[in-house]
Amino acid sequence: MTSHKPSGVQALQWTGKTLKVLDQRQLPDTFIYDEYDTAAGVAEAIATMRVRGAPAIGIAAAYGVVLSVIHHYETGSEHWQQQVLADIEMLANSRPTAVNLFWALDRMKPVLAEAHENPSVAALSYAEKIHADDIAANHKMGKFGADILANAKGILTHCNTGALATGGYGTALGVIRSVYARNPVLIYAGETRPWLQGQRLTVWELAQDKIPVTLIADSAAAWLMKSGAIDWVVVGADRIALNGDVANKIGTYSLAVLAKQHGVKMMVVAPTSTIDANMKSGDEIEIEQRQQSELLPACYKDNAYVSAWNPVFDVTPAELISAIVTERGVALNLAETGIGELFTL
Amino acid sequence: MTSHKPSGVQALQWTGKTLKVLDQRQLPDTFIYDEYDTAAGVAEAIATMRVRGAPAIGIAAAYGVVLSVIHHYETGSEHWQQQVLADIEMLANSRPTAVNLFWALDRMKPVLAEAHENPSVAALSYAEKIHADDIAANHKMGKFGADILANAKGILTHCNTGALATGGYGTALGVIRSVYARNPVLIYAGETRPWLQGQRLTVWELAQDKIPVTLIADSAAAWLMKSGAIDWVVVGADRIALNGDVANKIGTYSLAVLAKQHGVKMMVVAPTSTIDANMKSGDEIEIEQRQQSELLPACYKDNAYVSAWNPVFDVTPAELISAIVTERGVALNLAETGIGELFTL
Repeated sequence: MTSHKPSGVQALQWTGKTLKVLDQRQLPDTFIYDEYDTAAGVAEAIATMRVRGAPAIGIAAAYGVVLSVIHHYETGSEHWQQQVLADIEMLANSRPTAVNLFWALDRMKPVLAEAHENPSVAALSYAEKIHADDIAANHKMGKFGADILANAKGILTHCNTGALATGGYGTALGVIRSVYARNPVLIYAGETRPWLQGQRLTVWELAQDKIPVTLIADSAAAWLMKSGAIDWVVVGADRIALNGDVANKIGTYSLAVLAKQHGVKMMVVAPTSTIDANMKSGDEIEIEQRQQSELLPACYKDNAYVSAWNPVFDVTPAELISAIVTERGVALNLAETGIGELFTL
Repeated sequence: MTSHKPSGVQALQWTGKTLKVLDQRQLPDTFIYDEYDTAAGVAEAIATMRVRGAPAIGIAAAYGVVLSVIHHYETGSEHWQQQVLADIEMLANSRPTAVNLFWALDRMKPVLAEAHENPSVAALSYAEKIHADDIAANHKMGKFGADILANAKGILTHCNTGALATGGYGTALGVIRSVYARNPVLIYAGETRPWLQGQRLTVWELAQDKIPVTLIADSAAAWLMKSGAIDWVVVGADRIALNGDVANKIGTYSLAVLAKQHGVKMMVVAPTSTIDANMKSGDEIEIEQRQQSELLPACYKDNAYVSAWNPVFDVTPAELISAIVTERGVALNLAETGIGELFTL
């Protein structure tokens, strides 16, 4: 793969001894990094959604393992491997849906088994490779996706899949950047309730790059499709099953059903690290339910009659997806072949 | 019609000389009435959405005409009829989509043409009849709708169509109250971006009546339908065309398309005053676009790259609607017959 330096905003910065994490909960009003020097801190940053987006979660967790190795190996602990394994377990429990988290942690484990002169240095080189590979994969996907979208007039995206959600550049938003560089397509972003990743992050990121974007309420997507303004929905993924079913931000399934009914095509953009070789279909994917308080204002607290249902992901069946774009190539006709046969995982 | 006293919360209260308007923008945190003694004040209350909901807008406008008559007739103006007509014109321009507004203003106009000993008293009796008829109609619709929904297990509603949106009781929410009184059906409310009528008003109103309700993000409706939890979507309407097309809160069209794909039925509940005899189909209905600032945080102000598309209504074609419930009866098979033939308008 060719090498790409991270460009624009960076969700994660390795300082040499600590991981700086951009607190995305405070965007777009406040731009501030929190700094972590322990795996527990990184796990907390993931669980509290300071960092979010499947690829970025994986990269952050990898750096969390580096911090664990530094802490346990360099303090001379005899059982440092077991202690790092415990930290890996803790990091794995920070959020349930994005498979990139578990994938990245698995890629860090050889550090414990192999003999290294300095395991800290080895761990860092593993993590940095995960990070660099992700950026390179994004640029590859950007090109593959843009080739398909060459004649698109309008694109709707959902959630945030940009530099903030990845090592840099972005998955679905990387494709959109690449398309826009070739052709000034109209770009629409859904707000993405309840966390407003679209309103707070996607709109902000595109505006930083001077790319025009129009925000819509999630519930206006069908009406936008009916108006004829868009011909593609382009989204990321948190987990892809072997049959091509895709878990992604809540609302993606809704967009896929609506797209089908309006003759709009649906593209999913994700690195192959998002494919879960253990999942035959999307039915097996665990869907994270987050706190009711993300939806309910404080005044309803302790009100016995009020509750909220807050699944933050849903699963889109393969037959509603026109194309899955990965860094290794594009999968089409998913309903017939799934995605598993296209890749040696 | 039998007489019903308004029960529970009241969006509008006539004090004898002024109209008190519950400021719904501040619910559920703050419960406060603003008091108006001029038609201009009432027009402002409608335009700023202190009062919203098609039937409530119509009733408020009717009381606005009463205030106009009091002001211009009782101060002895020679041209009081022309001055009231100008106020009616101003009230008609306060919001464009809800036809009940124009219907109510038309019902007030005879006050100007007929000879009355005291036009103020006559105007008030007209307005109070509009208000009382609306409440009675809501109770009738509640019964008709509940008969159809007798075996429902789960109902999703959108926006707020309750006592806050009407003279009292509610249209779609009146049906839901009536269903719940017979059978403890599960009730789900969509947040209803951008104004959060579902989260702020519907959930609040139902909880006041000790009716359990579960809030969802609008974009989670498709996933909820897929789970099998609901068998009906029940909504109100801002305008109904003669072919049965329905203009309602943005997101209604989305729910209708999704419902059809999931075998969920769609009910629209609205008084016949919502039917626009001048509209053959929904294509002719003007859709209000509200300010971009309802969607965009202040930090994007003056950002040349950021805009928002904020239509606050959409049109659902008749073929996606299973039943339209009015106070005069229920219209089924809309795609074949429309709604116009069922009523003498």
